[in-house]
Amino acid sequence: MPQNHSIAVIAGDGIGPEVIAEAVKVLHAVAPEGVRFNTTDYPFGAAHYLASGSILGDDDLTALATHDAILLGAVGGDPRDPRLAGGIIERGLLLKLRFAFDHYVNLRPTTLYPNVVSPLAAPGDVDFVVVREGTEGPYVGNGGVIRAGTPHEIATEVSINTAHGVERLVRFGFETAAKRRGRLTLVHKTNVLTNAGGLWQRTVNAIAAEYPAVSVDYLHVDAATIFLVTNPARFDTIVTDNLFGDILTDLAAAISGGIGLAASGNINPDGTFPSMFEPVHGSAPDIAGQQKADPTAAILSVALLLDHLGYADASARVAAAVTADLAEGSPTPRTTAAVGDAIVARLAQN
Amino acid sequence: MPQNHSIAVIAGDGIGPEVIAEAVKVLHAVAPEGVRFNTTDYPFGAAHYLASGSILGDDDLTALATHDAILLGAVGGDPRDPRLAGGIIERGLLLKLRFAFDHYVNLRPTTLYPNVVSPLAAPGDVDFVVVREGTEGPYVGNGGVIRAGTPHEIATEVSINTAHGVERLVRFGFETAAKRRGRLTLVHKTNVLTNAGGLWQRTVNAIAAEYPAVSVDYLHVDAATIFLVTNPARFDTIVTDNLFGDILTDLAAAISGGIGLAASGNINPDGTFPSMFEPVHGSAPDIAGQQKADPTAAILSVALLLDHLGYADASARVAAAVTADLAEGSPTPRTTAAVGDAIVARLAQN
Ligand SMILES: CC(C)[C@H](C(=O)O)[C@@H](O)C(=O)O
Ligand SMILES: CC(C)[C@H](C(=O)O)[C@@H](O)C(=O)O
Repeated sequence: MPQNHSIAVIAGDGIGPEVIAEAVKVLHAVAPEGVRFNTTDYPFGAAHYLASGSILGDDDLTALATHDAILLGAVGGDPRDPRLAGGIIERGLLLKLRFAFDHYVNLRPTTLYPNVVSPLAAPGDVDFVVVREGTEGPYVGNGGVIRAGTPHEIATEVSINTAHGVERLVRFGFETAAKRRGRLTLVHKTNVLTNAGGLWQRTVNAIAAEYPAVSVDYLHVDAATIFLVTNPARFDTIVTDNLFGDILTDLAAAISGGIGLAASGNINPDGTFPSMFEPVHGSAPDIAGQQKADPTAAILSVALLLDHLGYADASARVAAAVTADLAEGSPTPRTTAAVGDAIVARLAQN
Repeated sequence: MPQNHSIAVIAGDGIGPEVIAEAVKVLHAVAPEGVRFNTTDYPFGAAHYLASGSILGDDDLTALATHDAILLGAVGGDPRDPRLAGGIIERGLLLKLRFAFDHYVNLRPTTLYPNVVSPLAAPGDVDFVVVREGTEGPYVGNGGVIRAGTPHEIATEVSINTAHGVERLVRFGFETAAKRRGRLTLVHKTNVLTNAGGLWQRTVNAIAAEYPAVSVDYLHVDAATIFLVTNPARFDTIVTDNLFGDILTDLAAAISGGIGLAASGNINPDGTFPSMFEPVHGSAPDIAGQQKADPTAAILSVALLLDHLGYADASARVAAAVTADLAEGSPTPRTTAAVGDAIVARLAQN
């Protein structure tokens, strides 16, 4: 009996549709014998918001919730458009999905692929994953403003950290480290943020006892940025809070050749809600529609999606095809579609 | 009539005393004709705390407040010592001074000196300064824990941002940019931290109108880390909040050759309290007492101190001597004292 999976596709804005077209090509091409991925397109994004007045309503969430996973390209319009100011699309769409679908693991692998140029002179063997918390910390939207616009204005942001939220994330981090090189680094700022830092550190200490094969260390977030540029090979699995993870993963993408290659998974490990997979890059409206965007990050997001759905072999095949494609390189710039086609062609060979 | 300045010196722990000895040498050597720097030593630090039970009391603050400026080496003991856990020295000493003496500007210049090796393959012309807020944000110690140690624990951290605090910092940032290359970059996370981010962005917009010669742009903190490794030369003056500034300045130090060279000023521009100058590096207990530490960051902190006290020429002479010393380099490792002596010798020649 064929196994069907229903995948929601949010191509989004700017280069989103172009890179997603290649990602979907790859998804179909790599489907194991007897497995079918049925995709359903959703129009969400800045353009949809400007046309309809709606970003992501309750009905939309209900519809998305029926799928097995979500694949997203990129969302966001012209950064100078005042109607899109203040991160309204990012919060109304990306963060809303993370919170509504309890995507408490934000998984961001960093690999320096062969032939990819790092801005670091001697990057070494870069291969680590950041396990970023996705539903707590300073991202909760808790805080406010009084006396706005006056000389007495006070604006606050509250970082909320719960034992429930930290523990499940840290546990996922240990599971991840155990399957990798067995080295977990907690990144926080425990010397200043003593309340949240204490909870994170105690949680890691407690769960570490259950994973004797995983070695654990700790870095302050400021020191972690130093190591990311001086010795990124020291990292295997980084476990960290939502905001620190946001910062560290952009830096991680940069040292491994840019966010054109960085994939991410917004994961609900419990399976209560569909997980969402997306390239880390944005919608790059300046190059949209020109077939200039690199679809590799979107295609690597498909690899993460496949792994999440239990198709580890298919996931590895996509990663191998991407690696081979990068290793061979291209003497001249290729169109977005040409990159996707090249990767599909490699999949057909193996 | 000779002009006397009284300087409090907190040599601190680990390599602190060694690097401070060289910094004080330089301070005396560079004193302009008719100017005397009288130094008074204070014992504060981890060792003092372990011996006396006191980190920094009210009497100590009263004593320090009588000086014109403070020069600090490094504080902090053995990181594994449970009596020093949780950042007790950092908060009880460094942060306490920043808050008690209203050091609202945390000034951190980043220069890639000649002959200094950056971990970046093509760093370009790195010369910028981070104007970090020092008395607000998530550093205020506001927040708490309920149900500690239970599965229902909740830990919070509150970032507090005031119009008063942001405005004075941003104003200092524009003054700084106007004296440099006239380019100010606000770094925040306005698309997520909308309350604090809104206050920062509106404040920058308002003050920008008073500085038509300064161009202004904005980066999210995550994107800023990308530019710091792909194109650091794009930065001139970065204005940012306390926590983002902490993270960005360690990264900035790393790309410009390491925190062995990074100096910082904790400044109260109003002159109500003495400002404090210190290298960004820590106490490095593992190499303490071996004359292995590089005193350059401490010596560059003296340059910042001189500038703050109005001795711009003397400050520039120290910077020039350091630059020349680094440019010449040394075929073999030098002792801490040898570096200080070399810089003093250069000062005598010019
Ligand atoms: C767009 C933004 C809200 C988002 C975040 O801060 O999490 C992005 O930077 C990311 O890392 O996915
Ligand atoms: C020691 C620590 C409290 C301090 C900070 O976080 O500000 C340090 O990292 C710094 O940057 O001066």
